[in-house]
Amino acid sequence: MPIPAPNLYPPFNIIRLSHVDFGVTDLAASKRFYVDTLGLQITDEDANTVYLRAMEERGHHCMVLHKSDAAHVKSLSFKVFDEDQLDKAEAWFKARGHKTAWVERAYQGRTLSTHDHLGMPIEFYFKMERLEPIHQKYALYKGVKPLRIDHFNCFVPNVDDAVGFYNEIGFRVTEYTEDEESRRLWAAWTHRKGGVHDIAFTNGLGPRLHHTAFWVPTPLNIIDLLDLMSTTGYLANIERGPGRHGISNAFFLYILDPDGHRIEIYCSDYQTVDPDLEAIKWDLKDPQRQTLWGAPAPRSWFEHGSTFEGLEPSESTLGASPIIAP
Amino acid sequence: MPIPAPNLYPPFNIIRLSHVDFGVTDLAASKRFYVDTLGLQITDEDANTVYLRAMEERGHHCMVLHKSDAAHVKSLSFKVFDEDQLDKAEAWFKARGHKTAWVERAYQGRTLSTHDHLGMPIEFYFKMERLEPIHQKYALYKGVKPLRIDHFNCFVPNVDDAVGFYNEIGFRVTEYTEDEESRRLWAAWTHRKGGVHDIAFTNGLGPRLHHTAFWVPTPLNIIDLLDLMSTTGYLANIERGPGRHGISNAFFLYILDPDGHRIEIYCSDYQTVDPDLEAIKWDLKDPQRQTLWGAPAPRSWFEHGSTFEGLEPSESTLGASPIIAP
Amino acid sequence: MPIPAPNLYPPFNIIRLSHVDFGVTDLAASKRFYVDTLGLQITDEDANTVYLRAMEERGHHCMVLHKSDAAHVKSLSFKVFDEDQLDKAEAWFKARGHKTAWVERAYQGRTLSTHDHLGMPIEFYFKMERLEPIHQKYALYKGVKPLRIDHFNCFVPNVDDAVGFYNEIGFRVTEYTEDEESRRLWAAWTHRKGGVHDIAFTNGLGPRLHHTAFWVPTPLNIIDLLDLMSTTGYLANIERGPGRHGISNAFFLYILDPDGHRIEIYCSDYQTVDPDLEAIKWDLKDPQRQTLWGAPAPRSWFEHGSTFEGLEPSESTLGASPIIAP
Amino acid sequence: MPIPAPNLYPPFNIIRLSHVDFGVTDLAASKRFYVDTLGLQITDEDANTVYLRAMEERGHHCMVLHKSDAAHVKSLSFKVFDEDQLDKAEAWFKARGHKTAWVERAYQGRTLSTHDHLGMPIEFYFKMERLEPIHQKYALYKGVKPLRIDHFNCFVPNVDDAVGFYNEIGFRVTEYTEDEESRRLWAAWTHRKGGVHDIAFTNGLGPRLHHTAFWVPTPLNIIDLLDLMSTTGYLANIERGPGRHGISNAFFLYILDPDGHRIEIYCSDYQTVDPDLEAIKWDLKDPQRQTLWGAPAPRSWFEHGSTFEGLEPSESTLGASPIIAP
Repeated sequence: MPIPAPNLYPPFNIIRLSHVDFGVTDLAASKRFYVDTLGLQITDEDANTVYLRAMEERGHHCMVLHKSDAAHVKSLSFKVFDEDQLDKAEAWFKARGHKTAWVERAYQGRTLSTHDHLGMPIEFYFKMERLEPIHQKYALYKGVKPLRIDHFNCFVPNVDDAVGFYNEIGFRVTEYTEDEESRRLWAAWTHRKGGVHDIAFTNGLGPRLHHTAFWVPTPLNIIDLLDLMSTTGYLANIERGPGRHGISNAFFLYILDPDGHRIEIYCSDYQTVDPDLEAIKWDLKDPQRQTLWGAPAPRSWFEHGSTFEGLEPSESTLGASPIIAP
Repeated sequence: MPIPAPNLYPPFNIIRLSHVDFGVTDLAASKRFYVDTLGLQITDEDANTVYLRAMEERGHHCMVLHKSDAAHVKSLSFKVFDEDQLDKAEAWFKARGHKTAWVERAYQGRTLSTHDHLGMPIEFYFKMERLEPIHQKYALYKGVKPLRIDHFNCFVPNVDDAVGFYNEIGFRVTEYTEDEESRRLWAAWTHRKGGVHDIAFTNGLGPRLHHTAFWVPTPLNIIDLLDLMSTTGYLANIERGPGRHGISNAFFLYILDPDGHRIEIYCSDYQTVDPDLEAIKWDLKDPQRQTLWGAPAPRSWFEHGSTFEGLEPSESTLGASPIIAP
Repeated sequence: MPIPAPNLYPPFNIIRLSHVDFGVTDLAASKRFYVDTLGLQITDEDANTVYLRAMEERGHHCMVLHKSDAAHVKSLSFKVFDEDQLDKAEAWFKARGHKTAWVERAYQGRTLSTHDHLGMPIEFYFKMERLEPIHQKYALYKGVKPLRIDHFNCFVPNVDDAVGFYNEIGFRVTEYTEDEESRRLWAAWTHRKGGVHDIAFTNGLGPRLHHTAFWVPTPLNIIDLLDLMSTTGYLANIERGPGRHGISNAFFLYILDPDGHRIEIYCSDYQTVDPDLEAIKWDLKDPQRQTLWGAPAPRSWFEHGSTFEGLEPSESTLGASPIIAP
Repeated sequence: MPIPAPNLYPPFNIIRLSHVDFGVTDLAASKRFYVDTLGLQITDEDANTVYLRAMEERGHHCMVLHKSDAAHVKSLSFKVFDEDQLDKAEAWFKARGHKTAWVERAYQGRTLSTHDHLGMPIEFYFKMERLEPIHQKYALYKGVKPLRIDHFNCFVPNVDDAVGFYNEIGFRVTEYTEDEESRRLWAAWTHRKGGVHDIAFTNGLGPRLHHTAFWVPTPLNIIDLLDLMSTTGYLANIERGPGRHGISNAFFLYILDPDGHRIEIYCSDYQTVDPDLEAIKWDLKDPQRQTLWGAPAPRSWFEHGSTFEGLEPSESTLGASPIIAP
């Protein structure tokens, strides 16, 4: 099944991914991880909630931590081009029978809450409180020097379906992995903002969030984070890497937060603003697609993910990754 | 005079800057500079013309070198979103009394040749021959490892006027320098593709091209280029840097090609896709706007530029930079 | 068994490791690896022999490749402080009943051939043809930009014995791994030149050469080499890394040449010139001693090594590494 | 006048430079500079004194700050190979009529205070309190991540004389600048520990301390420091750089502490342990000797230095640098 032609005139204009809302079981532990170790900046907090931004972001938050009884993901949020797009989005989702609601979100203007074809909670907004630039306040940089949120990656039980849905709302495929025999998609990377992805999909029990990624300046910042984590009690939180992905060509590291939410530290993918950019196809059997240098990912990387609050994931329609078959 | 509000729904959709066409007096010397030293890849050449691309680009060329009697710039080119935008562009320029022509350009589809409010030759196209990806052919990387063309910077005699014109066709201001007394713009950075700029304007005898910039992976590649140029006969071609700009926050180096065309090597600016991104204002008197670390630019940097073929530049309406006053 | 006190006034003064002489089965393949890929410079060659140096070295060679029927190591060489040290060395080895011979080595002055307590062939010389500096000929740098040979690492059947022998001739222990139960050494790093090691010893079937290391400028050069090797047919030659060692604190990569000789690419260990530098002890059970970030070494890394020409290795007196026990 | 042959068997064995003792006028300001900004670690302090070490050092201090009425340098210190060397040193200096004294220095064993041929106060010791390694306590790294003290550079009125004196006590010349006409030395770099220098001499009003240098991991740490200093109130303290020296090939930055003591941040010179290493000669007229990339040093760099406590400097016997002549 070929990937669909890009939908260049989607029903509403999504600019980029914006933020993730995590349920975490120990707010203090999460702050030690995200603030003291990774280097995100607190923009507001109270006893139950922490708002965070990365160093070059001017919007109020790219991550919200809510103290919860269980670890989960509350929603994935996207910023649209202007207020009108919110109404167009509402109309589009309603017309397809998706539930929609206008919800209150601190520091945000009108916010549309809805869900994708699998019930995965997604939110759209245009206005968010804008903050003073801090990207030249170099005294604030620490940890891995996170510059901005870069992308989400989700387990889904059927990647072809996910690409079909997100393609309709304008996400363009940049790279994809196909099983040469079944001609089914095993994974796909789709973007709005001009990088390799805003959201990617990978075959597996889903929907679940595989990871949330942050962009950093250079591979040396990732090496610094490894040195820091491995000598401050976070050795077991290092899951995979460092390495270079075949897909996206990015330099990466995967780590786990205290609740097991997976974070990717990421840099040096490429610009994808051309509407006629050709998607790059990878064979499922090519080990270099995941790590250009050949090192395999650990089994946990194929299996572990964060569930969405109140949403039961379904088995993959393709089965488990052949990569991790014994 | 405040900067204009961004024009979020311009008359036609420009995606990004695309390429520059240089007249050069010694094609062999230019090849040694751009290919052997900088590391651009030749995609076609004959006795009078060389086409070049950078490592992550899939379009056929980001620079064209034409053997000429005199050094000059033939045109600056931009890629639009689809074919329809070309017709919309033609109509818009015609309606304003600008000359337009459909011209033949090798490896490109329909190409509209026109000029801006100052007569500066600009061209628009949608289709360009697409080439195989080479960004993972690491054996080809050399020199500064140029990844993509990033932006143009032009001297203009009146920056307010230039920003007004380009704002109409959708270029959004990200940062600008204002003279606090006259409230006149001294320089402005405007973008389409989501970085700090596709084209910037600086006060001076113009229109002339101040520089063309290439994006590279990290500051260390710029250090490598300095080591290489300074030990292979290009010492005098190093004009300014390395340093970090206050404006754009990018790490930079300015060098001159054998004809004096200025090239900036550039990395690590920030993402600007938010339509409500606030432009950052700098005071003309703040020395850190040009180099965050305080080192002044040499006089040549304020004065030297490349003329456009057959186009006589005009004196600035503001006078010379106070920075270089004795 | 504690490590011995450093022998600060050894019988003769060794300055540093100097070069390795490899028997290789396909000289052209070895040149592609060492010259085209790693970036060593050829200083002389004929049909059967290639001499190589790294970028900051002024001596004629740090590696000699001899075409051979089988892959092996011919000898490990060390430079002494002056001619007198050669005579002192000869006397010392003779007095202990080691065979000694004055041998002809191209581009070297008087050269003493002898062997260590295990029969491992080692050579000493003072004079080697000196070459013009090339460390500022930046056009010559390529591959991983190797700056200098850094150290040897050898499998030995009894590390306590090896440390005892090399300590007598002045090698000082900087770090070591001890089995907390048996109080036996599992591995030790010893130096002459002021870095973490000139020669290290690790428990196993020996004597065999575990690896030869080259020093490079920064971790980014190692990332460049990984990108290059993985896209030019050397994917299977990448064995372990990149990572940071706990021991030595160096950033490392292990690769295999076409004959299976292991090369370490290495940077950023520390200065050890203080004669009262305290050796750092690591517990055999601490997984961070090998990789600070926790990633285990592959089994091949514990088992594979290069034999010395005509020398049968012996089984370890300690057994196999508990690390790789199933 | 040629440089002298290296004295390979000096009268006593100096291992390396060890530490500098600065008189500073505002201890709190100096701590903000050296600790909060550069990243040195405090190992002891009281109301009038601060002891500092760099990240890979195990000796108690590489810098001592003493609160003083005026900014000056109290002494430059060197570590010798063992206790016996102290007695040999005392005898040697006494025999030449230099004043010597055994002085009390906190955290040090027997310490010999004396002076060089110009009266410059130098001290020798063998024992210093040894501290736990912190080079793998990555949470402590900050600022420029200083790893170790690297060298001193002194203005002297006659470089030939200085080289003559220090050569007698074993310092070996690695590079030097000669005035081709007068055949007089203009500057020279001399070492003990196996790098390009432990102490260098440059022509000028002297003796004065030109700078004290710290070794850092990579050029990116120097870029980080520039970003930090230029945005935390230290813009005026940035004097020269970043750049690459022709001499030493090191990447460098020169900054001034709150009292005007000059600090060099330095990395990537080369190994010099070979006793037969050929010194590299540079012509005084070659602008690349100072900055390989061609950028000139500012006038202050040729003129400003720190005086030694109670020691009146003398005019150069060669005159001012022709580099800075108008």
